[in-house]
This record gives sequence, C-alpha cells and structure tokens, in this order.
Amino acid sequence: MNMDLKAYLAERRGLVNRALEAYLPAVRGPAFRVVQAMHYSLFAGGKRLRPILCLAAAEAVGGDPSEVLPVACALEMIHTYSLIHDDLPAMDDDDLRRGQPTCHKKFDEATAILAGDGLLTAAFQIMADAASRFEGRERDLLAVIRLIAAAAGYPGMVGGQMLDLQAEGRKVTLKELETIHRMKTGALLTASVRSGAVMAGGTRAEVTALTSYGEKFGLAFQVTDDLLDVEGEAGEMGKATGMDAQRQKATYPGVLGRQEAKEWAQRLVETAVADLQDFGPVAEPLREVARYLLVRRS
Amino acid sequence: MNMDLKAYLAERRGLVNRALEAYLPAVRGPAFRVVQAMHYSLFAGGKRLRPILCLAAAEAVGGDPSEVLPVACALEMIHTYSLIHDDLPAMDDDDLRRGQPTCHKKFDEATAILAGDGLLTAAFQIMADAASRFEGRERDLLAVIRLIAAAAGYPGMVGGQMLDLQAEGRKVTLKELETIHRMKTGALLTASVRSGAVMAGGTRAEVTALTSYGEKFGLAFQVTDDLLDVEGEAGEMGKATGMDAQRQKATYPGVLGRQEAKEWAQRLVETAVADLQDFGPVAEPLREVARYLLVRRS
Repeated sequence: MNMDLKAYLAERRGLVNRALEAYLPAVRGPAFRVVQAMHYSLFAGGKRLRPILCLAAAEAVGGDPSEVLPVACALEMIHTYSLIHDDLPAMDDDDLRRGQPTCHKKFDEATAILAGDGLLTAAFQIMADAASRFEGRERDLLAVIRLIAAAAGYPGMVGGQMLDLQAEGRKVTLKELETIHRMKTGALLTASVRSGAVMAGGTRAEVTALTSYGEKFGLAFQVTDDLLDVEGEAGEMGKATGMDAQRQKATYPGVLGRQEAKEWAQRLVETAVADLQDFGPVAEPLREVARYLLVRRS
Repeated sequence: MNMDLKAYLAERRGLVNRALEAYLPAVRGPAFRVVQAMHYSLFAGGKRLRPILCLAAAEAVGGDPSEVLPVACALEMIHTYSLIHDDLPAMDDDDLRRGQPTCHKKFDEATAILAGDGLLTAAFQIMADAASRFEGRERDLLAVIRLIAAAAGYPGMVGGQMLDLQAEGRKVTLKELETIHRMKTGALLTASVRSGAVMAGGTRAEVTALTSYGEKFGLAFQVTDDLLDVEGEAGEMGKATGMDAQRQKATYPGVLGRQEAKEWAQRLVETAVADLQDFGPVAEPLREVARYLLVRRS
C-alpha cells in the first residue's frame, strides 16, 4: 500500500488540535495566567506523535479513531507537561523549544511549574470524564488510566528523567541507556499505542502485538532522536542541536557510534513493523510512522 | 456524644500511614532517588487531615472506612505533591516544612520537582488500580477520579496557587481572598469529604450534605490557618510563623481583622456541623474534627 503519510499526519494533527482546543480553551476565568501558560505550551507546534499513535492503534484494531480522542489528548497533555518541567532551570535549563521560548521564559518559573502540574492533572480529568462516552467499558477506561499513570510516573517518565539527570557527566553502559530511555520516552509511547488499542476494543492478541510494536517504536524513536541531535540542523529542529554532547548526556551514537546506532534503529523499525504482520491495511499508518523515524529530519 | 478525638485521630493516622507505606515502599529500584524523595516528603509528619476526612465521610454514610483507603491515600499524595512544589525556590521558597528540611533542601530542586510530579501521578495510578476493589462501582470510581482531578488542577489547587502568587504584595478584597482559598485549599478538602461519601455508597442527599459540610470546613480551615500564622509559635507549627505578613500574602486576619476572623471561623464551623444534622452518631468524628479547627495549635 502506498499511503500519503504527510497528508495523513496533517489530517490527524488537525483532529487532535481541534479536540485539544475544546478541552483547554484559552478562555478568561479565574487563574487565567496559568491556563494561558498551559495553552501556550500545548499549542507551541508539537508533532502530536503520541495522540496520532493512539488514534492509529485504535484504527488498527478496527475502531473509530475519533472515539479515543479523550485518551489521545490526555497523552499529549502529559507529554507537554513533561517538556515544560524538563525545560526548567533546575532541570535541563532550556530557553527554546520547537523554535519558541520555553514556558518559563515566556511566563516565569512559578507559572511554568504550575502549568505543567495543571496539564498533568487535566489529563486525568479528561480521561475520567470520558466515562459517559465509554458506558459499559468503564473497566477498560480505568485500566487505561492506570497504565498511562504508570508510564508517566516514577515507574516510567518521572523515573527516567531522574536517571537521565543522574547520568549526566558520567559514562553509562548500553544497558543503563536503554533503561533510561525505556522509562523516559518509551513507556509513554508504548502506552499511547496500547491505550488506543484497548479503548477501541482490540482483542488480547491484538493488544499484545501492538504493545510489542510500541516498545520497539519507543526505542527506535530515541535512537533516531539522538542521531538528529548529532546530525540535525538547529533551524529544522527548532531547538539547539549538539546539546546532548555539550551537557555530556548519554546518547546512543555516543555509546554505540553513529553507524551502529543507525543500523540498530533500522533493525528496531523492521521488527516493529514485523509485529504488525497479522494486521491488514488498517495498520498501514502505524507501519509508515515507524518507517518515517528513519528519514525524519525533526 | 463524647468521643476521644485525639485517640481517634491517632488510630486513623496509623491506618493511613500503613496504607501509604504499602503504596509507596522505600524499596530500592530504578530511579530510587526520586522514590526516596517522594517517601521523605510523604512521611515528614503530616496530620493526614484529607485522608481522615475521606474515611470519616465514608463512616458517616455507614460505610467501612478501610474500603476507601486507596482514595484517601491518593488525596494525601496530592496534598504532599502540592506542598513540595509550593515550597520550591520559584514559588514560596521555604526551607522548613513540619520542622524538617523541605524536599528541595533535603535533596535538590530537580529531584523535588520530580518527586512532586511522581506523587501526583501515583495518586491517579492508585485510584485507577482500585478498580478491582470496586467491582460494579467503576462509574463511581471514575466520578471520584474526575472530581479529585478537578479539585487538584487548574480549576482548583493549581489555579489557587497561581492566584495566591499573583496576589502577593497587593491589597485583595475579601471576595478575592475567598476565591483564592476556595481553589487553593478548599477544593481538595471538599473533594476529600465528597469522595469518601461517594465511594462508600452514600445517597445523593447524604453526598450533598457532606459536600456542603466540606465547603464550610475548607473555608474554616483556611481562616484558622491564617490565624495560626499570626498567633502560633514556630515551635508548635514546625515552620516559621508570621511568614504571611513578611511575604505580604493576603490573609483573613489581614483583611477582616483578627477578632472578626475568629468569629467568622466560629460561624463557619457551626454551619458545617449543622449540615450534619440528619446524620447520627456515625458523623460525630466529622463534627469533632470541625470543632477542633477552632482550638488547634498546629
């Protein structure tokens, strides 16, 4: 099958953006400043990769992607909160994100901390609020909330960021690097695919296969992200490149060498696509998105 | 009825502490540092007021308090996260909390931000994970997750902290002060009572009455908290007193005067207790805890 990935991604981004705008309108009310800051970071040009994976997984099990939008939007809010907090002076101290001032630069540090907290909390509110949409499926919804919380919290993203900070400036093994990234970025990417499949009513076998795809996708994403930091141009990335080396962050090209990192990313994408062998053309977007990791430039 | 409130509170604190220890054991694992920081702040001597209110509300509608422990513990984790983030240098910049170094003083700023994020996320994980305990009651559990998220997020606690920071150094009206505190502390206190009543299967009338009690309790709590800051002794409070004035924070004694603030707290407690008139002796703990606000010294 030969799909137009670019048009597909644009259409899905539109769908997600409209839903996000409905969930978090920039409407004046009490504490408007923190809502503004949440809105600013949420609409600062994200690729919407996690929600798109969630919608595509729903599609892959024969579901209606728009049905899982509350979960998809919650995933993007959690991702955005993590960027806001990671950018803080006490963490990675970044001034630019996607070519625009980071939240604490645009507003201030206190507002950025609160905006992150607000997005993380709103994500759970939106998912719990989707109960009416999933009548009779409440148990699945609770399972999805649980798995997303685990992926975002100390067993996942929060723990991964902690390990990443602790690894700065020292040599790490490939095994340590995998643990960091499996927790820091892999867990939420995997949860995105899995939650879409669960909420769209996928069978146990389908959910297992898609979770396996998600795990490999997550690793491949990080390897190619590290390669982009070495090879990308600041203009296309919308952020400073070469920052990992400057900060002595552990990276795959650093540990494996550039060529071997590229080959490994390739193998990961191939095995991720192989996990989808029992799925028909409905899984084509997931296949294409995985292959795109190898050629993306931002 | 003449209950021994001190013994009651000690017994309930023990129940909550044992459950919290089970939910967040200080066990070595990946990213142990952030788990240690979460554990440190969670066990830094909190009064466990929110979980105790949740358990007491369950009791007041004839339920088994221990059944609602997952929700009660989630409330304490959310409260602890909010203290960790509020204490950060970019926010209230506090070095002491309950007589011990604040999280960012004991660890560091990055770890404290992550510990707060970890506790907030763990709260939702624990609630969603309680699905197996509430079979057939999944819809109520989702409603409780939603109401707690709203109370904690930008419509509640996060928004209230934003307004509180924005109000520093300027004169606020009584109406503004009420909005700040209704959002910052009242919302989660009210949610504590309401969620206990809902999860223990309270009738609609019971839940309504207890919510009304919770709203008045929340306001009375803040008024008496402000009074303690003016009148308490640092030794008993476990933190510096007179800090509100030093920071030019808006307070009830500041806006109303000390005497009028005291009288208002008294009236709020009376009306909170009056909300419980249709409840029998099972609601005595809620009545006593409200009355205790007027005589507490920390």
